[in-house]
Amino acid sequence: MKNTFGNSVSVTIFGESHGSEIGVVLDGLAPGIRVSEEEIADRLLLRRPVGSISTKRVEPDHFRIVSGVFDGYTTGTPVCILIPNENIKSGDYQSTRSLARPGHADYAAYCKYHGYEDYRGGGHFSGRITAGLVAAGSIALSALEGKGIRIGTHIARCAGIQDRNFSDLQEDIRALSGTSFAVLDPHAAAAMQEAVSQAACSGDSVGGILETAVIGLPAGIGEPWFDSVESLLSHALFSIPAVKGVEFGDGFALSDMKGSEANDSFAVRERKVITRTNHNGGINGGISNGMPVIFRCAVKPTPSIYKEQDTADFFSLTEKKIRISGRHDPAIVHRARIVADCVTALVLCDLLCQRFGTDYLAAAEFSN
Amino acid sequence: MKNTFGNSVSVTIFGESHGSEIGVVLDGLAPGIRVSEEEIADRLLLRRPVGSISTKRVEPDHFRIVSGVFDGYTTGTPVCILIPNENIKSGDYQSTRSLARPGHADYAAYCKYHGYEDYRGGGHFSGRITAGLVAAGSIALSALEGKGIRIGTHIARCAGIQDRNFSDLQEDIRALSGTSFAVLDPHAAAAMQEAVSQAACSGDSVGGILETAVIGLPAGIGEPWFDSVESLLSHALFSIPAVKGVEFGDGFALSDMKGSEANDSFAVRERKVITRTNHNGGINGGISNGMPVIFRCAVKPTPSIYKEQDTADFFSLTEKKIRISGRHDPAIVHRARIVADCVTALVLCDLLCQRFGTDYLAAAEFSN
Amino acid sequence: MKNTFGNSVSVTIFGESHGSEIGVVLDGLAPGIRVSEEEIADRLLLRRPVGSISTKRVEPDHFRIVSGVFDGYTTGTPVCILIPNENIKSGDYQSTRSLARPGHADYAAYCKYHGYEDYRGGGHFSGRITAGLVAAGSIALSALEGKGIRIGTHIARCAGIQDRNFSDLQEDIRALSGTSFAVLDPHAAAAMQEAVSQAACSGDSVGGILETAVIGLPAGIGEPWFDSVESLLSHALFSIPAVKGVEFGDGFALSDMKGSEANDSFAVRERKVITRTNHNGGINGGISNGMPVIFRCAVKPTPSIYKEQDTADFFSLTEKKIRISGRHDPAIVHRARIVADCVTALVLCDLLCQRFGTDYLAAAEFSN
Amino acid sequence: MKNTFGNSVSVTIFGESHGSEIGVVLDGLAPGIRVSEEEIADRLLLRRPVGSISTKRVEPDHFRIVSGVFDGYTTGTPVCILIPNENIKSGDYQSTRSLARPGHADYAAYCKYHGYEDYRGGGHFSGRITAGLVAAGSIALSALEGKGIRIGTHIARCAGIQDRNFSDLQEDIRALSGTSFAVLDPHAAAAMQEAVSQAACSGDSVGGILETAVIGLPAGIGEPWFDSVESLLSHALFSIPAVKGVEFGDGFALSDMKGSEANDSFAVRERKVITRTNHNGGINGGISNGMPVIFRCAVKPTPSIYKEQDTADFFSLTEKKIRISGRHDPAIVHRARIVADCVTALVLCDLLCQRFGTDYLAAAEFSN
Repeated sequence: MKNTFGNSVSVTIFGESHGSEIGVVLDGLAPGIRVSEEEIADRLLLRRPVGSISTKRVEPDHFRIVSGVFDGYTTGTPVCILIPNENIKSGDYQSTRSLARPGHADYAAYCKYHGYEDYRGGGHFSGRITAGLVAAGSIALSALEGKGIRIGTHIARCAGIQDRNFSDLQEDIRALSGTSFAVLDPHAAAAMQEAVSQAACSGDSVGGILETAVIGLPAGIGEPWFDSVESLLSHALFSIPAVKGVEFGDGFALSDMKGSEANDSFAVRERKVITRTNHNGGINGGISNGMPVIFRCAVKPTPSIYKEQDTADFFSLTEKKIRISGRHDPAIVHRARIVADCVTALVLCDLLCQRFGTDYLAAAEFSN
Repeated sequence: MKNTFGNSVSVTIFGESHGSEIGVVLDGLAPGIRVSEEEIADRLLLRRPVGSISTKRVEPDHFRIVSGVFDGYTTGTPVCILIPNENIKSGDYQSTRSLARPGHADYAAYCKYHGYEDYRGGGHFSGRITAGLVAAGSIALSALEGKGIRIGTHIARCAGIQDRNFSDLQEDIRALSGTSFAVLDPHAAAAMQEAVSQAACSGDSVGGILETAVIGLPAGIGEPWFDSVESLLSHALFSIPAVKGVEFGDGFALSDMKGSEANDSFAVRERKVITRTNHNGGINGGISNGMPVIFRCAVKPTPSIYKEQDTADFFSLTEKKIRISGRHDPAIVHRARIVADCVTALVLCDLLCQRFGTDYLAAAEFSN
Repeated sequence: MKNTFGNSVSVTIFGESHGSEIGVVLDGLAPGIRVSEEEIADRLLLRRPVGSISTKRVEPDHFRIVSGVFDGYTTGTPVCILIPNENIKSGDYQSTRSLARPGHADYAAYCKYHGYEDYRGGGHFSGRITAGLVAAGSIALSALEGKGIRIGTHIARCAGIQDRNFSDLQEDIRALSGTSFAVLDPHAAAAMQEAVSQAACSGDSVGGILETAVIGLPAGIGEPWFDSVESLLSHALFSIPAVKGVEFGDGFALSDMKGSEANDSFAVRERKVITRTNHNGGINGGISNGMPVIFRCAVKPTPSIYKEQDTADFFSLTEKKIRISGRHDPAIVHRARIVADCVTALVLCDLLCQRFGTDYLAAAEFSN
Repeated sequence: MKNTFGNSVSVTIFGESHGSEIGVVLDGLAPGIRVSEEEIADRLLLRRPVGSISTKRVEPDHFRIVSGVFDGYTTGTPVCILIPNENIKSGDYQSTRSLARPGHADYAAYCKYHGYEDYRGGGHFSGRITAGLVAAGSIALSALEGKGIRIGTHIARCAGIQDRNFSDLQEDIRALSGTSFAVLDPHAAAAMQEAVSQAACSGDSVGGILETAVIGLPAGIGEPWFDSVESLLSHALFSIPAVKGVEFGDGFALSDMKGSEANDSFAVRERKVITRTNHNGGINGGISNGMPVIFRCAVKPTPSIYKEQDTADFFSLTEKKIRISGRHDPAIVHRARIVADCVTALVLCDLLCQRFGTDYLAAAEFSN
């Protein structure tokens, strides 16, 4: 299904950048999960543009829970959340309707939808749709926290500047949870923000790498083949606009290692099997091994830049120049970070419920 | 579904390393596709170990088509192919039954299957199961060729040695199709094989990177979100054992680029929209744009090495040493290459049939 | 997935009887299908209560298309339609919160949702949710009409009174399309309405049988086994509240026939293969044979009746009496009829797009 | 997916009547379920033809478990079972290759598969394929028994002769389990067998009705809408060849009842909520209510009869006479009975594992 993902816990997204609302349906979640509108609002805030390094289109994200929540708890039936689109300037897009913006889906969409697509602001391709994933994922994150599972993502790299590595995961995830520019090393954070601002000044944009850690995931989750933890997470992560690479553990660096370097040897601590290193990112043979799950997503630079670019008019099949106006982000890696958290949470809820049943994530009193 | 993947065209795998047969069911393929047993045999041969750089367990892969093919053509009903396991030495594994081989799924599997798993030779986790994917994918590859779509994978890097880049894709794919060690530059090939042999001599193993190109895929295939071409391909590619990273186009390198560098500007050639560069790997917004689809998979070094390693006994929860015996590959990147081709073909057949209907891949006379 | 159905064309429903809105997401429909808000409104009207024989809770059904429609045509991306709940009296339900209404899902829901379910007005179990199916199905019906496929349902039986059989299907379907009480024989219609009114007077309710005909469906649609036309239609039809039986062609009557009576012999008319009779309802071996598809749904009497009934309090586990107040239908078979049409249309759109591709239902200019 | 059904527990079927083997892949079943080859053989025996009232094509059904079972227990990975086709006489079918056998799928299949279908003995449409469902379902039945859930089906009606109703379900299910002609009343059984024999003598065939009871299913299983217990069971039951109607509880008879007659009033017995009657067949709002689940399937008379019939040649588009030779059943209702049991078991295993997790059906020691 095209806009639905997940088996036991699933998510359906809909909407366009310039419609009245975008939204999400989260289905299959256990009854009895506490839903905090403040937490959802806080997480939506993390997705919103910040200061000079983001688009000037600022949406209040006054979301509305339409179904599936009753007296503050999930009912177990589908949760629909609507987020109105406000502050829309559709006029920005009409003059360039048939010009394929480089790096964007305009031309591919035209080939698929034959010109019937809503082209305004990227339509259904807009990163705006991820607000729905954040709203739904926020409930999933809270449900996982109730089971001791925590997820945190930092900007491991932006504009060529590297953050420090994860060290104390428990502490690092806690530190990241409230920050709007999720970098562990404050010096790196300042340098990244400076680089983003400079790119903005020159009408250009930058990309980066997000690194996510999951702690507390039990061993034995996932499947050997098509529903490996890597398969399901990558499927969802590549749905985030601008993600062009996903790697687990040491990822591409593993390809240059020897087996004797890449293998994580096992040990026993407090009558629990652990690995001494975690080059495999907590996953062996597609299945969680109880160690932290670690992965990275490559986020390409925002394709909307203000420099003049060569392009084609796909109506007239002629070559043209395009100069994109409107409001755009000089980087989205910092905004995509909460989307990565949320998408990860949705996939893990699904995997856990497939393994342990619908009630696993439910309120404590009947889930035992 | 755990061992089934795909929607319109789907594949189901089964079997264990030391059972009587492993197999695959390929369902949803159009009727009227020519099935050549020679082609299947040839592709299975590419997956088999070669010379000194592979395991000494050589299987003849005497596959048998049990259903779905009649008078040399697909019938449109499920194609089951069985591949017998021969040359099995189960004794190699029993003494280490409860020792978690580092880098392997033994411990994760034990957490999932509670000790009921068939532990011999990796059981259902064995790379042996990919022979089924190759058999099914071989039919898919032939079906795609009938529509002018061609897929080729080379070992872009192995043991730190780099192959040359793709240049003339048509020609490079043709050149790769018959080779058992799929490297474009013969000097690189020799150096890689030498490095693999050296790793083997020292009881160690090496990894590598596979790079795949698809030409002829029409624009407009895939979905904006969860069923993006990247999502579906990565889902399937991460099912291949040892794959720990997948990137499309310039992938992780995009994260260091400026938007003005990463954007592929459009042009018009012979009344057809093309891009001048292909940093996005033929995919914009999850949808094919008509350019070659390019991606890379990181393949970790084979975890089975002959050096002594630290490990845990997960029955007794004690620390132990393990020295793996048996027959193992010092590298699998060269054998995984045909698996990447086949998995790619299966995903693309599925996407094309979803888009254009079941008969799209069928014999010419009624597919128009 | 629990509240999502379909593969190539899918529908996701959400909402509760007493929430702010109920809604539906229709995904996978081709771009370029004309969407008439009048037609949707007209079909929603057919689902609404009529006169003395229906509930006094009358909803204006002021639906709102939130996404997926642009300039009057489907875009090819998900269509979300919201229908506000108005005229809600939640007070009616609270006093009987823990009393299981006989014939209703209250107790089963309590076992599933542990008391977190929204119990007001049946919550997510309410027939009100079918308004979303009608809104989405209305677009599907129009898309099918564009391909010459027409669907019509009549009340074949209500309160023991029989309608005449279908005769000229083309004409009968046309006649049924605008009627709010869909009975072919006006005398039968009057008698049925009288019987419903009498049941209402005595605080009771009646059931009936819906019979649906589909004309114009091409031969060769459906699958031999799990995705037989019967399997998929019955799956969707049994989702309609109160449906407790589904039969195709002569259905249960076939069980008393001889093979020589039940077999539909083939003939040739205008170089087209037809059957002389249609005991099999247009489906052989799960696949359409080009004849009209005919099936019937048994609709049980509305469980909400005003007579005192024995029941259990599932909080205190004591036996109680219940007397249901509030506004309820003495029959729903006449309102369920458009739901049957719409659900049928959704399933057939899915089957056709799986067979012929996404564009099959699209605007004429590019679907050929 | 066409030949795969189920979510958490799924089944994939393949094969043709005249291929070397037919088979099934059962995936998602818990590890640690005891697999008895004797039980599978016994259940396959119940599907085989009996004496004078069945086809003379008798297959020994020497099945072979290829994967997923180790040391007598399920491993948790896919179980593939192969059943060889023996005693094949393909010559019987070739002379009538382009003649559409009335009541059969030949013509519909030709429209779908364009002539590439394996037409011998019905090919993939053959009832022979249900042997795979019985083999897989047999394991599912055993797994359910381990949880106290029992399934039994009797021939409620055959050739117009009625069996007695279920009375003591526990006892009736036990009595039915070993019988090859599953009728509760021995006089009815004799009369039915006589009627089948008479139909056989006159070259004709008869149909019947199967009635299934499930006891021990916990309350709270199933979903309100698309994955209602009725939806999923009917989906699977309509996949059984010749099933043309499915009804739950009183089914079609409910349509003539008043609400006050059809409602099952609740009571409390031993601190457990029960219903006094079971007109709704143990399902309210799509969800099990803890009472026995009861449903009936209408089985049409075998379409293969020896009388001359009118038909069409779909190659030449001319009208012809057909006289079917070969070996055929004068009734299949008695053979379909174990298929109904098995299909029911597969659906319930899936529903239970979705609700309670993968390990629910597993060996006692770790499923608690």
